[in-house]
Amino acid sequence: MSPHRPISSGGIAAALVLGLAALAPVHAADGTHAPLRAQLTAQHDANVQRLRDWIALPSIAAENLNAAQGAEHMRQLLLEAGFQHADIIPTDGKPGVFATLDAGAPKTVGVYFMYDVKQYDPKEWSSPPLEGRIVHKPGYGQVMMGRGAVNQKGPEAAFLAALHAFKAANVKLPVNIALIAEGEEEIGSPHIGQIVRAPQVQAALAKTVGVFMPSAMQDTDGIVTVSLGAKGIVELELVASGEQWGRGPSRDIHSSLKAMVDSPAWRLVKALDTLVSADGNTIAIDDYPQPPPISEEHRAMIKAAIAPNSEAEAKTAYGVQHWIDDLPYQQAQERLVSQPTVNIEGLVGGYTGPGGKTVLPHRAVAKIDMRLVPGMRFDDAVSALKRHLAKRGFGDIEVNVTGGYNPTQTRADAPLIQAQLAVLRACGMAPLLWPRNAGSYPGFAFTDPPLSLAAGHFGMGHGSGAHAPDEYFVIESENKNIDGFDGAAMSYVDYFYALAK
Amino acid sequence: MSPHRPISSGGIAAALVLGLAALAPVHAADGTHAPLRAQLTAQHDANVQRLRDWIALPSIAAENLNAAQGAEHMRQLLLEAGFQHADIIPTDGKPGVFATLDAGAPKTVGVYFMYDVKQYDPKEWSSPPLEGRIVHKPGYGQVMMGRGAVNQKGPEAAFLAALHAFKAANVKLPVNIALIAEGEEEIGSPHIGQIVRAPQVQAALAKTVGVFMPSAMQDTDGIVTVSLGAKGIVELELVASGEQWGRGPSRDIHSSLKAMVDSPAWRLVKALDTLVSADGNTIAIDDYPQPPPISEEHRAMIKAAIAPNSEAEAKTAYGVQHWIDDLPYQQAQERLVSQPTVNIEGLVGGYTGPGGKTVLPHRAVAKIDMRLVPGMRFDDAVSALKRHLAKRGFGDIEVNVTGGYNPTQTRADAPLIQAQLAVLRACGMAPLLWPRNAGSYPGFAFTDPPLSLAAGHFGMGHGSGAHAPDEYFVIESENKNIDGFDGAAMSYVDYFYALAK
Repeated sequence: MSPHRPISSGGIAAALVLGLAALAPVHAADGTHAPLRAQLTAQHDANVQRLRDWIALPSIAAENLNAAQGAEHMRQLLLEAGFQHADIIPTDGKPGVFATLDAGAPKTVGVYFMYDVKQYDPKEWSSPPLEGRIVHKPGYGQVMMGRGAVNQKGPEAAFLAALHAFKAANVKLPVNIALIAEGEEEIGSPHIGQIVRAPQVQAALAKTVGVFMPSAMQDTDGIVTVSLGAKGIVELELVASGEQWGRGPSRDIHSSLKAMVDSPAWRLVKALDTLVSADGNTIAIDDYPQPPPISEEHRAMIKAAIAPNSEAEAKTAYGVQHWIDDLPYQQAQERLVSQPTVNIEGLVGGYTGPGGKTVLPHRAVAKIDMRLVPGMRFDDAVSALKRHLAKRGFGDIEVNVTGGYNPTQTRADAPLIQAQLAVLRACGMAPLLWPRNAGSYPGFAFTDPPLSLAAGHFGMGHGSGAHAPDEYFVIESENKNIDGFDGAAMSYVDYFYALAK
Repeated sequence: MSPHRPISSGGIAAALVLGLAALAPVHAADGTHAPLRAQLTAQHDANVQRLRDWIALPSIAAENLNAAQGAEHMRQLLLEAGFQHADIIPTDGKPGVFATLDAGAPKTVGVYFMYDVKQYDPKEWSSPPLEGRIVHKPGYGQVMMGRGAVNQKGPEAAFLAALHAFKAANVKLPVNIALIAEGEEEIGSPHIGQIVRAPQVQAALAKTVGVFMPSAMQDTDGIVTVSLGAKGIVELELVASGEQWGRGPSRDIHSSLKAMVDSPAWRLVKALDTLVSADGNTIAIDDYPQPPPISEEHRAMIKAAIAPNSEAEAKTAYGVQHWIDDLPYQQAQERLVSQPTVNIEGLVGGYTGPGGKTVLPHRAVAKIDMRLVPGMRFDDAVSALKRHLAKRGFGDIEVNVTGGYNPTQTRADAPLIQAQLAVLRACGMAPLLWPRNAGSYPGFAFTDPPLSLAAGHFGMGHGSGAHAPDEYFVIESENKNIDGFDGAAMSYVDYFYALAK
């Protein structure tokens, strides 16, 4: 749904650059697991071709494109990589896939895949978005360009390549794997709960040490930040209309009629006005779920991540002169991590073209997102909003919820996280922790009861352009700070062994 | 700018239908001025071709299209119709035209033309919008379809045809004519004042009995309503932006950043909220110009025009269940005529496509129109709005005025109006008066000081589709209640003689 890197990575990256910029890629000089590394080298072309073939089959839930085909392709990819079982899990939406790889190991790790990709417009791309063409990107190396290259087929293909290496080298995996894949991540994972709650899936996940999603975590300076969670989100439209209101017009009429006809656009403004404080920054929804105070542990993580120069860089990146309430940078970052939001994504009603047009619109819409922190729940936020509107006399305003889910949080001492830190430290890094992404991903499906598991992202490698044209994933790196495809695959090998400890 | 018929014409028309629907077209059985009528018949094809040629030359101020060519064409049309002098009047915008026809008559009438037309999209038309093709429209007859056909070249061409008839019949006009034409009506007549205040123009107009614009006033049921004025209008955009505010982002950023970054979209909502009462219907701008109470004369006109069934028809036409404050129909119509408005034409900011997109917009815009009644002035309304925003702490909200002008009002006893009523009564009609259009036209240029003239619209004939695809003007009527081109032209002959009395 949203890029999974911490939104504050500009600042954090800047902090880390100071100490780590000169480090070599994680795996470049790593001599362990030589047979697996040899297989990754030997199978490199086949592994890359597998990613290219996958990019050629876009599954786009918003366009009802290739859901069944994408799920079946996913299932085959898993079986070929060594999963003994891989099944389609039907949902009320697009199908999921559930697969298990039993290596006879004491521990099992959960893995979360998405097989869908974001929409794309070929006209905006410099190479065909389904071709997976290898192009040279100066300063990065040879990259594969295509829709899904980094979000999320590239990292997932690197993960699969690691499994192929174990299989070809005839080395037993040090952990078992229980994997689910969904085909609706880009529309807000509306049915991930149906996948996770399927009895065989829930039973398998319950035995894991946690669930991670393969991810390309290296910035161009080689920085990796381990995030412990993500905010939840509610995405919705507030719709004021003459039809629902029973006042105002049921179609756009001449604006002069405002003198005798009520205006749904003004009604929307009046309803919106009640949702936040005068400065737009404090939620004023009656009986809205309250966030817990930020913990000292999380405050300390943030303090450790703030570098002297990162504030200026962040302000430049966002075009911002002042943070909310003129807060100092650390408090602004604490607010980013710990506070819920009610944001207007978009306003649209009546005439939206150049200049003016004398209409009285029959309908006006505010697109809203509400971020939730742990301790707040999706359902509670939606119902509080609806109650608020009804109580304030705006019961006619439609609350059209289009997506979202609960927040997700994992403790720093969870083995899933500690194994990540161990891999990074073994490579000479001094990784920083971040309390949670201000953006959102559906980790709640694993961290909420009944599973109550740890969840996170992991993986070396680099790419960019998620949701944008010219999305890419680095295949052969010419940047000493980032891994190419084989290094990314190797990071999963390392992670498996660290998890097994 | 706006269609010139009374916005309430649905209701008025319904009222008139009861008594007048069986009347023949105004001129069908009129035997006076036979030589002029004969010339209109003889020159019919040439008159229609003149309109077709004019439609082929669209002048569109919003697109900077054909202003100089359109003004020169206008000037030639006037000279050919018998004006002794016709000159281009330069302005800071598109040029105007000023022409005089001295018939040696005691009285002079002013005429207001527009030579520009509204934008059009040929893809939306059933015949090429610049071709002026004659097509059969069942229930109407042979109509000319083209951009400008009714708004306003068709009625203006019928007016010119009347002058050609006088010229060809060698009959002296009973009145002299002072005419101005502008090329910016469709963008709100921003420079009409420069045309009217040119010394020779102002001197000529000052001697007139008033100024009228040729117009196709017959509804399909043959109804004609004489309107005594129009509201003024201010069109503007209120723009909240991070740049102007000095808070919030200067480009759209990820919505999760709302937790630490101010929102220009919320700022716009908070500013808008202060402009009107909770129900959206009463202007709450501090020290805003106040409308005078509606006069008993105007209230009586409205009362006379309200038919028992017209309210239901109007509600159906607009898709409205209740008027403001659940007013009875007559009070709603009084409000329409007498009250100023602050209307939201459009809201646009951030992501406006289908579904949602997690952005924090750096900019949000409300497109606003404010209608003014006589006693209120354009400049006062704009300055009150700006003072209000500054006083309430919203001085950063840009007030981008895109057009508008003062209201216009003419007394019912003005000779210009009485002559209209005389023509209609002579044809057996019992015309109703309407206090003023709730829509707007730039009659202020004539009715404001220093000229302080009467102003209005006049002309038989019928057309529709102003500003829309398939705009048309009836050339040969098969509807007994409406005049074709020649009948429309003949109505100007009758009006000249009535004005001369």
